Amino acid sequence: MAKVSKSFLLTNIQSRRFRVSSCKPAFGIIPSSANSIIKLNLTTTAIKNLCFTQGLLRKTLTKMPIYEIIEKGTPNSTAYSIYFQSVCGKPLSPLHDIPLFANKEKGIYNMVVEIPRWTNAKMEINMQSPMNPIKQDIKKDKLRFVANCFPHKGYIWNYGAFPQTWENPDHIEPTTGCKGDNDPIDVLEIGYRVAKRGEVIQVKILGTVALIDEGETDWKIIAIDVKDPLAEKLNDIEDVDVYFPGLLRATVEWFKIYKIPDGKPENQFAFNGDAKNAAFATDVVAEVHKFWQGLVKCKIEGSTISCLNTTNAESPFHISAEEAGNIYKEAPDGGIAQEISDTVDKWHFIHLK
Amino acid sequence: MAKVSKSFLLTNIQSRRFRVSSCKPAFGIIPSSANSIIKLNLTTTAIKNLCFTQGLLRKTLTKMPIYEIIEKGTPNSTAYSIYFQSVCGKPLSPLHDIPLFANKEKGIYNMVVEIPRWTNAKMEINMQSPMNPIKQDIKKDKLRFVANCFPHKGYIWNYGAFPQTWENPDHIEPTTGCKGDNDPIDVLEIGYRVAKRGEVIQVKILGTVALIDEGETDWKIIAIDVKDPLAEKLNDIEDVDVYFPGLLRATVEWFKIYKIPDGKPENQFAFNGDAKNAAFATDVVAEVHKFWQGLVKCKIEGSTISCLNTTNAESPFHISAEEAGNIYKEAPDGGIAQEISDTVDKWHFIHLK
Repeated sequence: MAKVSKSFLLTNIQSRRFRVSSCKPAFGIIPSSANSIIKLNLTTTAIKNLCFTQGLLRKTLTKMPIYEIIEKGTPNSTAYSIYFQSVCGKPLSPLHDIPLFANKEKGIYNMVVEIPRWTNAKMEINMQSPMNPIKQDIKKDKLRFVANCFPHKGYIWNYGAFPQTWENPDHIEPTTGCKGDNDPIDVLEIGYRVAKRGEVIQVKILGTVALIDEGETDWKIIAIDVKDPLAEKLNDIEDVDVYFPGLLRATVEWFKIYKIPDGKPENQFAFNGDAKNAAFATDVVAEVHKFWQGLVKCKIEGSTISCLNTTNAESPFHISAEEAGNIYKEAPDGGIAQEISDTVDKWHFIHLK
Repeated sequence: MAKVSKSFLLTNIQSRRFRVSSCKPAFGIIPSSANSIIKLNLTTTAIKNLCFTQGLLRKTLTKMPIYEIIEKGTPNSTAYSIYFQSVCGKPLSPLHDIPLFANKEKGIYNMVVEIPRWTNAKMEINMQSPMNPIKQDIKKDKLRFVANCFPHKGYIWNYGAFPQTWENPDHIEPTTGCKGDNDPIDVLEIGYRVAKRGEVIQVKILGTVALIDEGETDWKIIAIDVKDPLAEKLNDIEDVDVYFPGLLRATVEWFKIYKIPDGKPENQFAFNGDAKNAAFATDVVAEVHKFWQGLVKCKIEGSTISCLNTTNAESPFHISAEEAGNIYKEAPDGGIAQEISDTVDKWHFIHLK
């Protein structure tokens, strides 16, 4: 059975930025590939009704999910996939359909969480699969788990990506001298809460570091959930060291060593590993957002990236909600989670000289 | 419903140290407090039959559970308790009935795992409750979770205790000048595997550090699971720094700061924080084992420690398996796990000067 979960948005609905009254459900129930019908649960249905009940919005939607995930395929298998839809049931690509900005004026961005803090399953928005579900990376035919390097356990931030961004592999970044890594831009969210896989959270940008990962520029944007109790106090990169002393240094060390247990060399950083400030990072994000706009609007010869989407009307890859729903329908259903070897918990004692 | 789990012993049965043919079931099925009967699962039943099938022992029991846990009370509630029994169904106190030695000649000890690595629920063998189930510590009427101090997540070892030991509060330890902390001796197991709560694992001693926790001697025995692939290479304290560089230093730092987020001062260590070697640690364990022998054999005026047990025939607290079974029966049944606040995941950025 596919499972439907919600991504909650805790916001003051009066801003109306996130109101859902204008969206229309593509389908009220999600057809599953096992010819069974998966009903959205009562809460979701109730919220959907509310989509069309303007009068109640202000009162009831202060804690309201705006995106939902649909889990398909057996957990801990190569078939496991997390698809996205709006709360009104419209299929969404997390790469192309979730807007980059949650509130452009206020500088609040949507971040798609791929890897919750302290976990190490290498989950990522799949660039090749239609509608870009989150899937676990495969390496030598095996699910990829990133090595735990002492003293760290798994990823030390909520790790994910900004939607509607693309690090163009044909663009040589002048500040690093390296080309883009062909992925959406990565985000490290440093708030206190462990986010959920597939959650869409609202963050503000604090800065960035420029990892050179196997010769490619791989920006890591440092951000904080706007709902974090410390969010108001963090406005730029220097605030990170004040409120999270040691985290930036650990971040650089983490990326330098994380592939060493897999036999790869130490990674390098541009700018001597120094973090750039929020203004610089904002410019980087604006640039990769533009690269994405080019990507979604034009067919590129030989590209393996799926640009199917349901919200960019001017895109040649735009499809109807019904067509996208059929893609979800065709994805295999789930089952009992497969067992994971306890070796994924191994702690590697790697120290840089 | 109470849940029954097994603690596996991977050993060569030929040593016969662990053979179970001599134990007799107190009851083949465990009566639950909800007047329902919880049947042991097929595997357990099969193994129980094997208890009396000498001929098959050698062939089939190479991976054999020797202790089982019974979970009672709603998880994440103050009622949640983990009771122990032998694979033959005999109730056991993890403090008094599980033997300290798994193989005395080979220097292999039983360790009761209370807190799996990377978790922070402060679970411990409850000294006051009859039959000493593992329960979560309570502080100011709330379940206690130990603060995560950056860069660490939860406990950085499998944390637990040696059964049949007691740090006597009336004994002033000459090497530290402080009295005992009235608990069984703590063990830090450093192998690669994340153990399970309530698991009984077989370890060898590598050394010890002497924490002075709020003025009491609180030995932390450093040990490794004998089944760990590195176990053969680790025989004394200096080997820890060779194979787990940085872990001993992190261990001392962890204990120094772990109560600071709760408003307590930095903890101190005897011996300037230096770890003592395996021989020293073995002597410490031998001493606290003797203290326990005194405890279980004599009634001490005013003691609140429950010494009820089912295996120490010479103890005034010895009870029958049936009487002990009634204690398990009276413990409240479980239910759906209560939700835990996400604040238990908060990362505290504490740095020592």
